[in-house]
Order: sequence, then C-alpha cells, then structure tokens
Amino acid sequence: MSTVYQATASAPVNIAVIKYWGKRDTKLILPTNSSLSVTLDQDHLRSTTTSRADPSFVKDTLWLNGKEDEIKPGGRLATCITELKRLRQATVENEDPTAPKLSTYKVHIASYNNFPTAAGLASSASGFAALVASLAQLYALPVSPSTLSIIARQGSGSACRSLYGGFVAWQEGVHPDGSDSLAIQVAPQSHWPNIHALICVVSDDKKGTSSTSGMQLTVDTSPLLQHRIKAVVPQRMKDISKAILEKDFDTFARITMADSNQFHAVALDTEPPIFYMNDVSRAIIAVVVEYNRLSLANGQGYKAAYTYDAGPNAVIYAEEKNIKEIIQLVVSFFPQREGAFKDNLGVFPPGAEVNAQATVPAGFNVGVALKREVGAVKGLIHTRVGDGPRALGEEEALLGPEGTPKILA
Amino acid sequence: MSTVYQATASAPVNIAVIKYWGKRDTKLILPTNSSLSVTLDQDHLRSTTTSRADPSFVKDTLWLNGKEDEIKPGGRLATCITELKRLRQATVENEDPTAPKLSTYKVHIASYNNFPTAAGLASSASGFAALVASLAQLYALPVSPSTLSIIARQGSGSACRSLYGGFVAWQEGVHPDGSDSLAIQVAPQSHWPNIHALICVVSDDKKGTSSTSGMQLTVDTSPLLQHRIKAVVPQRMKDISKAILEKDFDTFARITMADSNQFHAVALDTEPPIFYMNDVSRAIIAVVVEYNRLSLANGQGYKAAYTYDAGPNAVIYAEEKNIKEIIQLVVSFFPQREGAFKDNLGVFPPGAEVNAQATVPAGFNVGVALKREVGAVKGLIHTRVGDGPRALGEEEALLGPEGTPKILA
Repeated sequence: MSTVYQATASAPVNIAVIKYWGKRDTKLILPTNSSLSVTLDQDHLRSTTTSRADPSFVKDTLWLNGKEDEIKPGGRLATCITELKRLRQATVENEDPTAPKLSTYKVHIASYNNFPTAAGLASSASGFAALVASLAQLYALPVSPSTLSIIARQGSGSACRSLYGGFVAWQEGVHPDGSDSLAIQVAPQSHWPNIHALICVVSDDKKGTSSTSGMQLTVDTSPLLQHRIKAVVPQRMKDISKAILEKDFDTFARITMADSNQFHAVALDTEPPIFYMNDVSRAIIAVVVEYNRLSLANGQGYKAAYTYDAGPNAVIYAEEKNIKEIIQLVVSFFPQREGAFKDNLGVFPPGAEVNAQATVPAGFNVGVALKREVGAVKGLIHTRVGDGPRALGEEEALLGPEGTPKILA
Repeated sequence: MSTVYQATASAPVNIAVIKYWGKRDTKLILPTNSSLSVTLDQDHLRSTTTSRADPSFVKDTLWLNGKEDEIKPGGRLATCITELKRLRQATVENEDPTAPKLSTYKVHIASYNNFPTAAGLASSASGFAALVASLAQLYALPVSPSTLSIIARQGSGSACRSLYGGFVAWQEGVHPDGSDSLAIQVAPQSHWPNIHALICVVSDDKKGTSSTSGMQLTVDTSPLLQHRIKAVVPQRMKDISKAILEKDFDTFARITMADSNQFHAVALDTEPPIFYMNDVSRAIIAVVVEYNRLSLANGQGYKAAYTYDAGPNAVIYAEEKNIKEIIQLVVSFFPQREGAFKDNLGVFPPGAEVNAQATVPAGFNVGVALKREVGAVKGLIHTRVGDGPRALGEEEALLGPEGTPKILA
C-alpha cells in the first residue's frame, strides 16, 4: 500500500483599508505602495484547497469549483506551483535525503470558494492563499507565512495578505526580485476580535474595468497617483497600524474611509477615467457619513467605516457593539429580499425577518439618501475579523480516492 | 425734464475647461489656482441686467427674475455695487467736475436669466458679469474688462471669466488684495468660432454639496488638492492656452477631460467625500470615451471633450463638423421628451424630431452604456463659443419708467 501525499487547507478573504493600486513590476506583482487589510472570518467566506502529489499523475492539474482550469506555462498558477516545488526541494529534500521527492511528482489540486463569484467579492486573494497553504502543508515546508506570502503575491497581489489572520500589512519592499515584498501581521485576530464587517453586495449594470488593467492605466496616466504613493500612503500605513495596536476605532475609521475615497479618486484621475462605485455605492456612503455625523455630534466618535474595492460593493467595518444598529440602518434604506439575510452571528432573535428590523437612530437625517427598491443591495453578509489559513482534516478533502474532484460541476 | 441714467447689458455663461476649485481668500474670492473657460453664446444662455441711478431712490435695490433679492451689507452684491460706485467716483467724477455725481445716487437693478434655474447651470457667473457690465456702462467707466473682472470676481469667482468672450483665463494672481486676480482673454470668439457645445442636462435625485462650501472642505481635507494646484494646473494652463491658439482640438479635448476628471477626483478625496456626477453622468462619459476611441482608431484624433462642473450635467465641446454626429449619438442613448430639443443652430431639417435622428457611428460599441429611459437626460442645449458682455438698447430694458421691474414675478 502506497502513502497518499495529500493536504487540505482553507484561507480567508481580506479587505484592504489602505489600498493597493498599481504595480512597479507586473510580472512579479510588486506594488507601487504598501497596503493593509483586515482578514475576514473564514467561517463565512473562504477558499478551500486540496493538493495531492503522486508519481502516477501525468501533469499538474487544477480544478476550480469542480471545473478544470488551465495551468498556463509561465502563468500565475504555474509560477506559484513551481516556486513551492522549488522550496520543497531546497528546504526539505536537500536537507533530508530520506524525505520523499514530492517536488518531482505532478500535483492534482482542487479548490472551492464557499461564496458565489456573482457576489463580486475578489476570490483570487483567498484562492491563491489556500493554494499556497495547502501545498506548503503537503510539502511540510519549514517556512513562515511571510515567506509563503511572497509566493501567493505572485499569484494575485492581495493574496499575500490572506496568509495571516487579523490585521495584515503588505510591505511594498525595495528589492527588484520581490524578496522583501511580503505580508506581515500587524496584530492577530485575538488582539481586536470585536471588529465586525458588513458586506453590502451592490447590483451593477455591467462589469467595469478589471483591476489588473485598471491599475496600470492609473500608473501610466494619473498625475495624482505618484503623490498618493510618495506623500500620503506611508504616513497612513503608520497611523492606521498604530490605531489598530491601540484599538482606536476613530482613527481606524477615518483613515479607512479617506483611503477608500483616495483610491477611487486616482481611478477617476485616470485617462480614460475608471469608475467602480455607482449611485447605490454613493448612497451607502451618504448613509454612513450621516451615521457618523450624528455619532460625532453626540460625542461618540466614528461608529462605522466604509471601504470599496474595485467594484460597487461596500464593506462597512464597525465595532461589534454597533453592528446591529448599522444593519438596521442599512436595511431601512436598502431592504433585502425576504429570507435572503443570513444572520451569521445571531444579531437578531431567531427567525426574525431582517426588513422588519429596519430602523434609524434618533436624530438621523433620512433625507441623505432615497429608500431604494428591494434588490438595489442584493445581499448583506455579516462577518468579522478572522484567522489565517487553516489545515483541514481528510474529511474536508476535495479530492477523491482517484485524485480527482469529489464533485464535478 | 430730468435725465434718466439707465443702462442695460447682457453677459454670457462660461464653462471651465481648467477648473477653479478652492479659495485662498474666501472674502475676496481669490482662487488657489488659475482656471480657463469657454464663453458660451449668449443668444442661447444669458443674463440681462438693467441698472438705473436716480437721486429719488431711497436704497440700492435688486430684482432677480422679477423678485426682490436682499442686498446684505458687506455681502457679495453690496461689495460689487460699492466697488463700481467707488470706480465711478475715482475715474469719472474726480476727473471731470461736470460729470453727474451718479456714485452718490442709489441704484435700482433688475436682472433676468433666460435659462431655467432648474437646469442646474450656474447662473451666478453670467448674473454677476451682467450686473457689473450694466453698472460699468451706466457709470461710463473708462476701464478694461480685466479691471471689471476683479469686481465681478468678488461677486462670484467664475463670474470674472464672463467679462470676455471666446477663451478666457482667470489668473490666480499673487497679491493679497486680489488686484492681479483677474480675467484675460486668451483668444476671442472669432479666433476659433467653430467650437460648439452640447449641454446635457442630467436629472438628479437631490441637490448635492454647494460648490462654495464644497471647495473649502476640499482645501481643508484633500491630500491630493495641493499637488493638483502646484504640480498639475500650471502646466495644463500653458498647454491648453497653446492648444487654443493653435486650434489643436486634440490637445484641447484631452486636457479638458483630464481636468474635469481631476476636479471630481479631488472632490472625492475630500472628507466626507463629495460626489457631483451620478450614474447618468458616468454613462455620458462612457459614450464620449468610446466615441473618441473609435475616432482615434480611425486616425481622426479626439472628436469630443466632456466636462462637468459641480453637478451632474455634462457639457460636451466639439468642433462644428462633428456636432450633428454627437447629438445623434447622445440621443441614441438618452432619448429626449418629444418636442423638447430646440435645434438652435439648425443641425437637422426643419421640423425633424430629434429622437428620430438617433444613430451611432459605424464601429461604435453600444455595449459601453445602457440605453436610458426618456428624461434621464432631461434636456440638450446646443450652443457654441460666444462673445463677451453686450450693451443693449432701451427696448431691452428690464426697468419701467418708475424704476421698477417691467414684469414682477
């Protein structure tokens, strides 16, 4: 009986509060500026990947959500797999001659996202992080998540941040080979566990510019981007890291919103201009701005922080104590399809219909936005700061005995 | 029989291509950067003002569109009237002791805009320019439009540019008293008369931030604004002035669109962010971008330039030869209410319904924007570059024999 070399890992989604936008090296995916993100709870949003190495396999093969995905030679998937095999050889096989030569075997990889692509949430970050984590586990690599993050980065830039839980910085680095462009953990999940997130999935007429092509257009044409990179981001990285370490939500919120706005500002300063937010996104901003205005007027500081990636969806960060009020507020402007809201974290009484919970705080100026029709915000996902990649047991493996996906799409 | 001292003048609207956004002195209205505009034809959009000085009048009084408007002491209207009286005294009455002492008389002023306020077109520029022009005429001031522009500027910043026709720069100046913050003509209407404009009046849910308060919020909070002011605008002022002098529409269009985008980018970089464009504004941009892409692909250069002020309305500048095609293109995405389009400049056969003229150029990708319902763009105004303030005859006076408005609202 031969040994089965197989490992399964899951990895979380992360949402940046200091945005990455623009590469100084498009092949190695080296960014023009550092960035910082919050890792979200993979109980709600995750990618799971099973990898197996076997001498009988004839080629490296990957199935994404049950469907075979091409591993193009020289492409991002191939780069990550090659780098991990190289690390296996260098750090395990060369050190211990008795170690199985897994680096010489082809691999079969099955990956699955538990959230719909239609949600408009970047799945490449969690996807590449899970790929790297499962292969690192399969290969028993004696390396840190930061080292692995260098490999994940070459798959998808922001994937490097999903190698850690909690609050994670991607340091831009200075070396041309990218060896210092990696993720470090600013603070673990346990440091500030009551940071919650409400993802507002916004309907969109059509797909906008892809972030890969969009960011390079901005690098090439925006007169404001270089100023952002040189004069704004470094200070914000310091300030928000300090805010996280001090659990200073006020500063965290202020910088998070300012950086989201500035990212969209440089996108707009691109030729031709890039727009990711639409009128519904703007209306969510207006609601959060008014919510904070009211709170500040009451001497309570900022209570919510919106951030938008390269799409119309809002992510609202808030402390746990305010999240119920925020859900009630959002639903009062953006009613949900009946039964659509999953009360992941038990904010409401069991069985409560979310639209029936809609209410705005006393003193809130409801004139800041129009109440929208059901479906303008087509989904709300309540989650919170989470941990980094997890090693999963055999019972969660996605590959069957034959080394093919258990469920084919 | 006593002499009637009365004068009537009209003044045009202007739409900036290099945007003014932010004051370094809010009282004197001194801008943080120079700006440049195109004066539009007052046959289509204008303010008309009649001023009368009479020893029997008991107070300075102004009627706007037939309704009395308060002249607050120390306010902008009062400042303009006081300055013009001072100039009358200094340059006329002190020089010629026989000149009537009009500066000592109270004035009655009636002003009227021939375009609806609901159109969302800034009427303060043409309004203050017409006020200044009519009083300057009444007082027979021996001064240049540039000198008058210093006074109009103190009424409403961009009003200073409406003291000239054609292509007009507002030089920011350096003196703290504002004596060199004035308008100069870069080129007269006659230099490049075939520059046309299509104003697309866009429906809006609600009134956004006023530009007066919005621009100071940006000055106070945007990290990108200072870079725009120092590093971007000075070069653009030079480049677009050169493009105008050389009738280089390609460069004119590229800078116009880039500067509109950058103005909205710094508005977005404000805390809290300011949005003036909505989804319809964005769709118009997408149509113009695709129209230019097609033209560039055909080796014909840029054919249209959008620009947006502090609101959702688009102004599209184009050369006369392309304006028919542009109207047809715009109407194909944004159909008009039947009979709403006034064919000011005779682009279509007499009596033609504009929606029936809708068509897109061969090769145009109609997927860039959705076709909207009638009324998403609620009006189209076709106009062109125009002349500066005009002295009008008695038959166009807005004040009756008693020195009160001929028509009271």
